[in-house]
Amino acid sequence: MKRNVFSFPSKCNYDKRNIIHSIKVGIALVLVSLLYLLDPLFKKVGENAMWAIMTVVVVFEFFAGATLSKGINRGIGTIAGGGLGCLAAILADEIRGSIGNAIVVASSVFIFGAAATYARLVPRIRRRYDYGVMIFILTFNLVVVSGVRANKVMDLAQKRLSTIGMGFAVCIFISLLVFPMWASDDFHYSLASKFDKLASSIEGCLEEYFKLSGEKENKTSAILKDCKSVLHSKSNDESLAKFAKWEPWHGKFGLSYPWDMYLEIGEILRELAATAIALKGCLQSPKQPSPMQRKQVEEPCEILGLSLVWIMRELGESIEKMNKCRAKILIIPKLQILKLQLSLMQPPFKIQVENDDNLAISSFIFSLMEIVEKVEIL
Amino acid sequence: MKRNVFSFPSKCNYDKRNIIHSIKVGIALVLVSLLYLLDPLFKKVGENAMWAIMTVVVVFEFFAGATLSKGINRGIGTIAGGGLGCLAAILADEIRGSIGNAIVVASSVFIFGAAATYARLVPRIRRRYDYGVMIFILTFNLVVVSGVRANKVMDLAQKRLSTIGMGFAVCIFISLLVFPMWASDDFHYSLASKFDKLASSIEGCLEEYFKLSGEKENKTSAILKDCKSVLHSKSNDESLAKFAKWEPWHGKFGLSYPWDMYLEIGEILRELAATAIALKGCLQSPKQPSPMQRKQVEEPCEILGLSLVWIMRELGESIEKMNKCRAKILIIPKLQILKLQLSLMQPPFKIQVENDDNLAISSFIFSLMEIVEKVEIL
Repeated sequence: MKRNVFSFPSKCNYDKRNIIHSIKVGIALVLVSLLYLLDPLFKKVGENAMWAIMTVVVVFEFFAGATLSKGINRGIGTIAGGGLGCLAAILADEIRGSIGNAIVVASSVFIFGAAATYARLVPRIRRRYDYGVMIFILTFNLVVVSGVRANKVMDLAQKRLSTIGMGFAVCIFISLLVFPMWASDDFHYSLASKFDKLASSIEGCLEEYFKLSGEKENKTSAILKDCKSVLHSKSNDESLAKFAKWEPWHGKFGLSYPWDMYLEIGEILRELAATAIALKGCLQSPKQPSPMQRKQVEEPCEILGLSLVWIMRELGESIEKMNKCRAKILIIPKLQILKLQLSLMQPPFKIQVENDDNLAISSFIFSLMEIVEKVEIL
Repeated sequence: MKRNVFSFPSKCNYDKRNIIHSIKVGIALVLVSLLYLLDPLFKKVGENAMWAIMTVVVVFEFFAGATLSKGINRGIGTIAGGGLGCLAAILADEIRGSIGNAIVVASSVFIFGAAATYARLVPRIRRRYDYGVMIFILTFNLVVVSGVRANKVMDLAQKRLSTIGMGFAVCIFISLLVFPMWASDDFHYSLASKFDKLASSIEGCLEEYFKLSGEKENKTSAILKDCKSVLHSKSNDESLAKFAKWEPWHGKFGLSYPWDMYLEIGEILRELAATAIALKGCLQSPKQPSPMQRKQVEEPCEILGLSLVWIMRELGESIEKMNKCRAKILIIPKLQILKLQLSLMQPPFKIQVENDDNLAISSFIFSLMEIVEKVEIL
């Protein structure tokens, strides 16, 4: 839920998005309520209008992609559950005697319920189709059980499906066409802002390190917070990527935009954040070299750090703006110089904490570079 | 979803739990289906039996605490939504003319829908009451909208509420009394196993470092995976803690067990995992000291690392078994010796990468110790 200033929806902007989303949900609810409120419509659908309202309440999500994926899951779950439920109800109908009938229904409820619940616990299904399977269980049960009572199961199922379809259509219409919130935009900018956050963290660390000891402890917690927000972004990233994959072509993103690549970059950035936190740990550890020694390493470290920060910012910007040429031309030579500097630098210094961490960072950056290049090519 | 061997449900055991859960859901579904299948019951509740089925499908979760929290959320949401919906329906009823009536209904749907949706986006509410607010919107809408048609809103609401209550009762009964799955147990053991994972990672790192270079790259990925699973456990931990707080007194956990403390320990362990990953980064960096130099630091590092590993294991075990005396008596002196060793060790060695990382680790451990002590006291 945290956002960065970096040319990205700020706190205020973010709040505005929430308000827009709320208003959109309100409008969608009023639209489906019309099924009840307007007499001619109500005569057609009857009490089944309830299902349209339910669909809107449950399916309408913040991001367009999430709405789409939930709606499609719901649709498929309803159809599959309804179809199997009808079959089971017809089968149960052919068995004579109400007790035999009830036994068939109860056992089919048990078998399908237990099997589908087990499927929901399999991680791969859970990640993608959890909601669909739940709706499958629900629809199957309702249909098979009410099949015992109402003989017009098919008719009922059809009506419900059509109202669910109406609810879904309203959701999609409002979610995709009226001020859409794209998970892909969010994902794109959050990736770019991560580079920026890490860059400022490294910058902050360096500043902190070469200050006099009295002035410390002011910015440290802010740096740590930034790093941690990058570090703990995994689950957020994954859900955004999941939704982004569902979103149709819009803006600068094509249909098969490489979101998995984004996840890989995110993973590397998290490793980098871990390194940065460890670097901070070194800075805070009680055993520090004397100010003299620190002065000695100050200049090369500063140069190194600054070019590192510059590269990170540049990479972030090039991802944000999706231009590859500038990044390639400017960054790669700079990176090579950096690596050279690092290898030249080692011998004269005895305190290698800082440098070695930078080394690790730069090796991370190097592998990162490779992936960024791949993205830029695509 | 990953589990550790460490005296904890293994893969096979875990699968068994899934099967038990599936069977439990199946039984619960059959029980609520009886509302439909048995004539005397059906005469009482009628079509509202549907709501009992829906409640079971939606509310029954893997962990007892999750079921409880969802059920209570649902109950409160239904009551609040139903009550407000009734009020709005009565208000709308007093307005003459069907058009005026419809306008009042539509605007109340819009206002409450938008306001509640906005509330759902507030992080604090989202974390705890998301489901309850969703049910509130749903119930409010259904009641207020059907109030236009059926005049017996109160009766309808009451019947629905009672069937939802029945569904909830079935869920609670089966979830809590038949082979309950406690989120608190899972949380407790996963915390203990994290200590073990980190201990093995550190152990693995040390072994790796002092091997000849040819033998490397075998275990590294396993170590990294362990560290990362600890690192990315934040969201999982938070949801387990949320459920654990809902769970009633059982086994060794009291009603107000300090789960927040567990979260704090988890946070520190994640920082430690970040440090361990950085340590690994150092080991893998291309610029390694010569084998000679490495031999020189091998012994003290080994001693240090092993006692570190031992402390971690001991801490994990003491948390798992919840005994404080042994931990306190044995660990604290060991830790003090370790710190002493570290401060003595610095001068003679020139390659400080390893040591400094250990230093950071030991300072983490120290802060960790303090928190563990707090837990043990409680």
